[in-house]
Amino acid sequence: MNDADKTSEIAELVQILTDDLKGDKTIDDADFYSKPDKLEVHSVVDALFGIVYPGYYKDRNIKIYNREHSIAVAVENIFYHLNKLVVKSLEYSRSKENITDDARKAKSFRICSNFFRAIPGVRRLIESDLKATFDGDPAAGSLEEVILAYPGLVATTVYRLAHELYALDVPIIPRLMSEYAHTKTGIDIHPGAKIGEGFFIDHGTGIVIGETAVIGRHVKIYQGVTIGSMSTKGGQKLSGFKRHPTIGDNVTIYAGSSILGGDTLIGNNTVIGGNTFITSSVPANTKVRVKNPEMEYLSADHKWQVEEVKPGYEWFYVI
Amino acid sequence: MNDADKTSEIAELVQILTDDLKGDKTIDDADFYSKPDKLEVHSVVDALFGIVYPGYYKDRNIKIYNREHSIAVAVENIFYHLNKLVVKSLEYSRSKENITDDARKAKSFRICSNFFRAIPGVRRLIESDLKATFDGDPAAGSLEEVILAYPGLVATTVYRLAHELYALDVPIIPRLMSEYAHTKTGIDIHPGAKIGEGFFIDHGTGIVIGETAVIGRHVKIYQGVTIGSMSTKGGQKLSGFKRHPTIGDNVTIYAGSSILGGDTLIGNNTVIGGNTFITSSVPANTKVRVKNPEMEYLSADHKWQVEEVKPGYEWFYVI
Amino acid sequence: MNDADKTSEIAELVQILTDDLKGDKTIDDADFYSKPDKLEVHSVVDALFGIVYPGYYKDRNIKIYNREHSIAVAVENIFYHLNKLVVKSLEYSRSKENITDDARKAKSFRICSNFFRAIPGVRRLIESDLKATFDGDPAAGSLEEVILAYPGLVATTVYRLAHELYALDVPIIPRLMSEYAHTKTGIDIHPGAKIGEGFFIDHGTGIVIGETAVIGRHVKIYQGVTIGSMSTKGGQKLSGFKRHPTIGDNVTIYAGSSILGGDTLIGNNTVIGGNTFITSSVPANTKVRVKNPEMEYLSADHKWQVEEVKPGYEWFYVI
Repeated sequence: MNDADKTSEIAELVQILTDDLKGDKTIDDADFYSKPDKLEVHSVVDALFGIVYPGYYKDRNIKIYNREHSIAVAVENIFYHLNKLVVKSLEYSRSKENITDDARKAKSFRICSNFFRAIPGVRRLIESDLKATFDGDPAAGSLEEVILAYPGLVATTVYRLAHELYALDVPIIPRLMSEYAHTKTGIDIHPGAKIGEGFFIDHGTGIVIGETAVIGRHVKIYQGVTIGSMSTKGGQKLSGFKRHPTIGDNVTIYAGSSILGGDTLIGNNTVIGGNTFITSSVPANTKVRVKNPEMEYLSADHKWQVEEVKPGYEWFYVI
Repeated sequence: MNDADKTSEIAELVQILTDDLKGDKTIDDADFYSKPDKLEVHSVVDALFGIVYPGYYKDRNIKIYNREHSIAVAVENIFYHLNKLVVKSLEYSRSKENITDDARKAKSFRICSNFFRAIPGVRRLIESDLKATFDGDPAAGSLEEVILAYPGLVATTVYRLAHELYALDVPIIPRLMSEYAHTKTGIDIHPGAKIGEGFFIDHGTGIVIGETAVIGRHVKIYQGVTIGSMSTKGGQKLSGFKRHPTIGDNVTIYAGSSILGGDTLIGNNTVIGGNTFITSSVPANTKVRVKNPEMEYLSADHKWQVEEVKPGYEWFYVI
Repeated sequence: MNDADKTSEIAELVQILTDDLKGDKTIDDADFYSKPDKLEVHSVVDALFGIVYPGYYKDRNIKIYNREHSIAVAVENIFYHLNKLVVKSLEYSRSKENITDDARKAKSFRICSNFFRAIPGVRRLIESDLKATFDGDPAAGSLEEVILAYPGLVATTVYRLAHELYALDVPIIPRLMSEYAHTKTGIDIHPGAKIGEGFFIDHGTGIVIGETAVIGRHVKIYQGVTIGSMSTKGGQKLSGFKRHPTIGDNVTIYAGSSILGGDTLIGNNTVIGGNTFITSSVPANTKVRVKNPEMEYLSADHKWQVEEVKPGYEWFYVI
């Protein structure tokens, strides 16, 4: 194939793809230009960590001599960028209001202002989460180590901030915030969930907490736990219904358990063992665990046994 | 220790490590220079998102006035970089062919051309995945929100692109693509798997789908699900055999279930409850769930009970 | 709201947040300035990959003509940065020693020197992990592919390096290293764990291995497995006790299983099926698996059945 042939081949590929993008598929017509920018949302989240944990994160370990200065700069900076994002997201809402651009800008300013006013309350909750984490984990060396190295606290911090914007009816931005935390930690907490003080996530990879879940105070959740909904078809019709469980106070849920359904209530002080699959309520003060597994003794050299000899299956592990 | 001592100590450390790297271990001799660059593969994946979802991702939310221009530039750019990577990967293949450099370059050009010709088909499948995701999740605010914030769609998109290169017998690059998606989403879909239209991954962290798995149409899989193989020793001898299950159409698999083995078939319309461990076939139209867990009522203050008093075990949770 | 009103609103927000940061919460007073910088720790980890796998990673696929030169530069560079971090971390220790700055610097230099002397031993173990991974996975195309694309090997490599610093009593840095690997791979191995040669993690997302776990030789662990502790309150009092299981040689643990407790011992050659929840010992040569799940046949059109009709629940999947 000579260069001219290659050039014409590339031209043909361009034509094929350009034609394909002129189709009537949803993905041919998605208008990202008018949406809030995902990476700008991430920047705002990073900057907010510097207000929740002064001195930490975005500006790394910069020595702060005068907090008033650095906080003032951070607030102005975050407010400016968040406000721009909220204006965009309001245009994008499912419940698109028929209001003027000026009214939308005023609404966005009020939302951002209310969000900042909510931060002291958020910081009180995060302080309780931090203490619960330190108290609950013998491997934690210090409170600062928890802030620097515990993904559960990162995910909870982002969730508590995103939840305030969700409560202020901001579209899409709270979800982009929680998905940012999901990418960084493997923990997926929907900003719509309601979670009480002293929440402790240990390790956390694979945790999913759904939009309408309600979780009490001093709850401890391990990696791989789902507080989810039943699977549905035509799911959009369920939007707004309570589809996720309610968890009481002082509940501990071990790794890998799934608790599903909007009518499922886990009572106070209950302990849920690992790998359970629960779709109905559990009373308070109950201990739940899966039946013991079956054991079978193998010959000492079992590991070289072959269940069924197939070509190539020389060292098949029996299970 | 004075400065001279420190200098000589460092020199000794350098000597120790240099000697160690002259050993006969595999890792002493790995030749990364002749391999495709992992980060260049990531860049190609990012750029491909801009073709699958025009206006999205790599170029962020840039307004595109003339799609012909931006698509033409993107195609040329991706083709150039992908072609370089494919040439390198062909030199690296297990089945290294004894062909001239010119023949290898011509082969690479043909592969890349066929890959681009396959993209419209890939985009039709991704459109079906997008619609299945939106339809299945009441929490999804809009189709655009799904594209921006659903890791399952990211992993599926990368899988569908990588699968085309896998089908064209390109070595290593498809795996580097799927591992990139794994890092970003916690979802590990081998590019060799075959997956039908309307595939919906919800949340997705911890999902593993193996190389020889076959998955039907309109299948829904939750976080933590494994479509895997039995563990083996001497596994290299099994290369090429079907080691992973076949899943029918309209199957739903809840969080944390493992389905293993090349002869395992899950029939159409079947629902697999969470946390099951399945190593044999399940007929169509079946509902499978683990036995209900055991419950034990505790005294109201059980959480302060101690199972066995050891020094320091003051507040031991019973389970 | 005019501009003057906006300015005064922002000033009020700054005041609210400045006041809040003057509180007596732990997070108001955390002193990150004197702590090792997380991102510098990440850089050291990246650079160490270039010594463990010469030619790989941080410097990407640069051709190395003279290894002596590149290793000498890498050792000096890593030593300098690691030494700075260790000095800082020693000031931060729980067991803060009352020593002079000079003595602390000398101690840090010795620690770093001993760390580098330990690297050849670490590389021998990593070589055994690499071979176990290649041997165990039929999908692995080559040893180099394993190094480039297997997150289990990344997490194990970081663990083995962090474990040496942990054994040298370096505070916090080993945890920041393991958390970096956790973020990249979804695999959380505490640097305090003891793990024998030939360790093979497949896929790996969601794996958690606790601080006092002991794992034998040639152990294979799948995604979502927890080698963990019982949940505790007042957990800090348990610091230093053995809280995590001991796993024998040649043990295989399938996806999603949890094995908990410091007295739990899993004997040699045992196979643990997926999704088990184990809190007591299992003898050697045993095969453990959960009881088979329950199956129920549904009508062929079950998927459109509705368990309980609620407004909006039109297409409810029964489970």
